[in-house]
Amino acid sequence: MKSYTEYLWMNTPNRRDLINITDKVSQAVSKSNIKEGLALVSAMHITAGIIVNDDEPGFHRDLWKWLEQLAPYRKEYEHHRTGEDNGDAHLKNILVHHQVVVPITEGKLDLGPWQEIFYAEFDGCRRKRIIIKILGE
Amino acid sequence: MKSYTEYLWMNTPNRRDLINITDKVSQAVSKSNIKEGLALVSAMHITAGIIVNDDEPGFHRDLWKWLEQLAPYRKEYEHHRTGEDNGDAHLKNILVHHQVVVPITEGKLDLGPWQEIFYAEFDGCRRKRIIIKILGE
Amino acid sequence: MKSYTEYLWMNTPNRRDLINITDKVSQAVSKSNIKEGLALVSAMHITAGIIVNDDEPGFHRDLWKWLEQLAPYRKEYEHHRTGEDNGDAHLKNILVHHQVVVPITEGKLDLGPWQEIFYAEFDGCRRKRIIIKILGE
Repeated sequence: MKSYTEYLWMNTPNRRDLINITDKVSQAVSKSNIKEGLALVSAMHITAGIIVNDDEPGFHRDLWKWLEQLAPYRKEYEHHRTGEDNGDAHLKNILVHHQVVVPITEGKLDLGPWQEIFYAEFDGCRRKRIIIKILGE
Repeated sequence: MKSYTEYLWMNTPNRRDLINITDKVSQAVSKSNIKEGLALVSAMHITAGIIVNDDEPGFHRDLWKWLEQLAPYRKEYEHHRTGEDNGDAHLKNILVHHQVVVPITEGKLDLGPWQEIFYAEFDGCRRKRIIIKILGE
Repeated sequence: MKSYTEYLWMNTPNRRDLINITDKVSQAVSKSNIKEGLALVSAMHITAGIIVNDDEPGFHRDLWKWLEQLAPYRKEYEHHRTGEDNGDAHLKNILVHHQVVVPITEGKLDLGPWQEIFYAEFDGCRRKRIIIKILGE
């Protein structure tokens, strides 16, 4: 069995952003030299998520509208009594989930034709990390 | 360490459908000959999901109503400018998540008493794939 | 490759509860003697979830309000024709997801600075189980 760990540092210029990290995860798989296995891709923060979906700008706009409807920015979250103003970002993190597990087959990410991996930032403009942990042979 | 990969082809007669795939995942575990491990079950499409819940028809009807409330079919998604009409299916995929990891103990799926694995199709009537990737010993 | 399995029994005094299980998962990692790997933490029930987020009481109150808005308790779920009254708990399970995979690095949970692991009970006052299944080396 082999294992491989890599941390990706993110620092988005916008508070909310969607960054395609498929190539970076793919490069980590190459470096790991693992041919058959599982790659965990997980945000190390409670106000960001990882999703797998389509790299289509119209869908991305739909997604942001939808996230804002289901987990809206509001001043009145109780969490804000701590001085924070990112209560919505915590709920968006729960909604989209903060991680995915990507299968590796014959040394490559085994994704479907339209599947791309995205880092979803809900409270950015600061340095944050993603962990990629790969297990396999 | 051992690994095992299997693809399940799905082609549901209905646009939206919930298919119990527990037996198929269970058979993959038997074929893998892995006694202790993890089985990733992951939809390879961006308009389908994998869930673990109860095989109870009343709950399934509740689930579809709920999915339609939270991520409704609408004509006005921006994604539809590409010619597609499945914007709701992308959002439903994000909502339920597209994958689960099932533990394997003593050669069997280690699920709770009511846990069954389902393929949730949000844009069917076409051939789509699920990957089962098992790692263990 | 090594594997390790542990079951945590939960029995919350309240119907709905959020229990920080980070220490228990951490102890399981120590007992496993696995230095590099993945720990699956998964509720074995269809009316409970596992989440990773902040141990901040204000956020927890926000979370419960939000869960009740998106997947409300109602008498009229079709699932209730079976005699149950926990239809909302099934939907909350789908919403927050029932599992997380936590990376292990140098023998420890590799979580971000604010990440804590919680058992989210949606239909408690009864004995229920969580499985921790660790794979690695």
